[in-house]
Formats: sequence, C-alpha cells, structure tokens
Amino acid sequence: MTQAVAVHQSILTVRTREQGLHEITEAVAGELAKSKLGRGVATVFCRHTSCSLVIMENADDSARRDLEAWLNRLVPENDPHFEHTLEGPDDMPSHIKMALTRTSETVPFAEGRLLLGTWQGIFLWEHRRAPHTREVVVTFLA
Amino acid sequence: MTQAVAVHQSILTVRTREQGLHEITEAVAGELAKSKLGRGVATVFCRHTSCSLVIMENADDSARRDLEAWLNRLVPENDPHFEHTLEGPDDMPSHIKMALTRTSETVPFAEGRLLLGTWQGIFLWEHRRAPHTREVVVTFLA
Amino acid sequence: MTQAVAVHQSILTVRTREQGLHEITEAVAGELAKSKLGRGVATVFCRHTSCSLVIMENADDSARRDLEAWLNRLVPENDPHFEHTLEGPDDMPSHIKMALTRTSETVPFAEGRLLLGTWQGIFLWEHRRAPHTREVVVTFLA
Repeated sequence: MTQAVAVHQSILTVRTREQGLHEITEAVAGELAKSKLGRGVATVFCRHTSCSLVIMENADDSARRDLEAWLNRLVPENDPHFEHTLEGPDDMPSHIKMALTRTSETVPFAEGRLLLGTWQGIFLWEHRRAPHTREVVVTFLA
Repeated sequence: MTQAVAVHQSILTVRTREQGLHEITEAVAGELAKSKLGRGVATVFCRHTSCSLVIMENADDSARRDLEAWLNRLVPENDPHFEHTLEGPDDMPSHIKMALTRTSETVPFAEGRLLLGTWQGIFLWEHRRAPHTREVVVTFLA
Repeated sequence: MTQAVAVHQSILTVRTREQGLHEITEAVAGELAKSKLGRGVATVFCRHTSCSLVIMENADDSARRDLEAWLNRLVPENDPHFEHTLEGPDDMPSHIKMALTRTSETVPFAEGRLLLGTWQGIFLWEHRRAPHTREVVVTFLA
C-alpha cells in the first residue's frame, strides 16, 4: 500500500545503572502510539559513543548475559595496547563495543505497531560501568 | 531534488537451507519495482535474533566463504562459558553473530533502482545450522 | 510534531589516502543545509564492501587510533585460512572489518541540524591501504 507521509520525532532519556542491556522497546512503542501514525519506519539513534543499540532476544535473560560476557572477553579492559585510558579502564573498550554493535536502527511498523519479531526487543547497551543518563532520538516516518 | 513522499511496505519470506549468506537483492529490487516509487530509501529489517543482514561482495564466492569461516572461528560453538545452550551448540553463537552484524539496513534508490555499489549485494545471514523460514520487512520511503 | 515529508538525495565523493577513519560529518551537514529541510532523518550509505561507516568520538585522536589498532589485531592480514587474497593481504580483512561495522547509518535532524551527540562524528572507515575514491549516498527524509 502507498500513502502520504509524516514525521514525528522525540528524544527519550534512558538512565542506566551499570554496564549491560537496558530494554527500550516499550518507550519506543509508547512514542509510536503518541504519533498516531499507521505504517512506516521508526528510526532509533543513540547519541553517544560509549553505549550503543542492539536488537536482541527479549525472552531469556541467559542469552543476554552470554552475549555481554562474550563481548567482555573479546574486548577486555586494561589492554596494554590502549593509549586512550584517561576516563578509566572501561573507556576504550566501550568505544570498541559501540563500533561493533549499532548506533542507529530502523524498525518498520504497521497499524501503529512495531513489526518486531516475536523474540526481538530493542536495547540500549551501556558499555560504561558507572550510571549514565543517555539520550536516544526516535523519529517515525509514515 | 525535493519531492512528495510515500510509503510502500511488504514482508519477504526467505527459506534458508543451512548456515550461510542467502542473497535477497533481487527480492528487494522486485518489491521496489512493484512500488513504482522513484527516489528515496529502502529499509530492510530482519525479524529474528539468530540470523542477520549484511551487505557484502556478491561477485566472488570465496570472499563470502572466508567471511563466514572467519566469524565461525571468532565465535566457536561449545564455548564452555555459554549458559544459553538449550537449543543446541549453534544457539548462542547465532545471537552473538547477529549482534556483530546488522538487523536493519537502509539502502537508497533513484529512478526506481537501488543505489548499491557495483559489487554490493544484500544478504540474509542464517546463523543456525538447520533450515529456517525467515521474515524480512522491506519498507520504501520515497 | 508532525509535518509533510520530502526527499533530498546526493552522492558524496570521498578521496581516502590510506587505511583509517575519514570524517564526513561536515559534508553530510553541508548537504542537509542545501536541502533546506527542517526535521527528519539523514540516511548515509556506503557503496563499497572494503570500506564502511562508523559514528565515533570526534574529539580525541587517540580513541580512533586505539579503535583502528584493535580491529587490526582482531582481523590480521595474512591469515593462512584466507582463500580470497587476489587483491593482496588487505583484501579479505577489509571485507570482514566492513561486515563488523556499518554500511548504512540513519541520523536524525531538527531545525536543519544533525542531532549528533556532542562527541559524535560520522566517519568513512577506509579498510584498504591504498588511496581510493569512495561514494557515499546521503538521502534526507523530512
């Protein structure tokens, strides 16, 4: 189907407590509901270089724990090659983990609902150890 | 150039036989042709967390074989650290490989043709060993 | 806010001198200014499989150097497993590094300005050692 198009945009604030995956699916779906838009795409954008986005299984916690632990093994802290260490041992690994995952995602929707698969959730992945206030821009085109 | 905008959306079904890259460029281009749209972007979205998308060289098979083999070495099955193993040894590696590649891609088009580079193809990357039926949502904004 | 939508598209040419991150933020922002569009998303697409995109810290050079050096250690040249080596030792690593980073990015904008975070820049990541002329398609939907 083909229809006229509109833009709805807002900034979500995500308060992270520690390193790990923080689900934002409901927040994105809530903004979509506010927009009253029907069919189109939601673009999700992370405004930081030490956290990132990923669309991951939202059912079983163990899948997310294994994913995080695997990436921590791939990109360990205190790598003696690192020069950029002013903000601590989790500084440079956080940039690398960000680059290996995603800064932007584009998720389709129809009839006002995100067309995520059954097991998919949208997550902000905090790579720093300390709590942070993060901004995610959601823009709906429909 | 600046012009009015429209949305065309459909769901492609991809039947995978085994682990590996399955090209979907022609299927995406076919939907674009159906849409009759001229200039804009195609967004491609994979509705799963154990397969992913990648835009890769479509000419020489050896580049894809080397890419797959390299990622299999980076994320081997039977890692003793894995806790999420209920669906078999290819379960957790498939989620990790998905997270390291892409769930959504946005490809521009003009005059009704995808603006892919000469050597680029769009691929669904099946990370499970068994055959699966996969869904990819394509949404054209133009 | 909700408004009517339009499309503005152009192709940027990026001349790379060597392997590494080449910032294209100003070029993308310049095209946005030309478009006169207000609120929407910029989609950035790399038309190659041996270079890629990444949104990375644009302030401290050492973060980018560490990122590049880390990825070079993860994907070394002259891996004896590689079969696709006709174009030299940096050929296959360049495809793998591309697949691990990004081919497309979607960056929101408002009031004619990209909504990048304070420390974010958009970079074309050249993975080949020799100079190349690269094409990046930018499409603004607003």
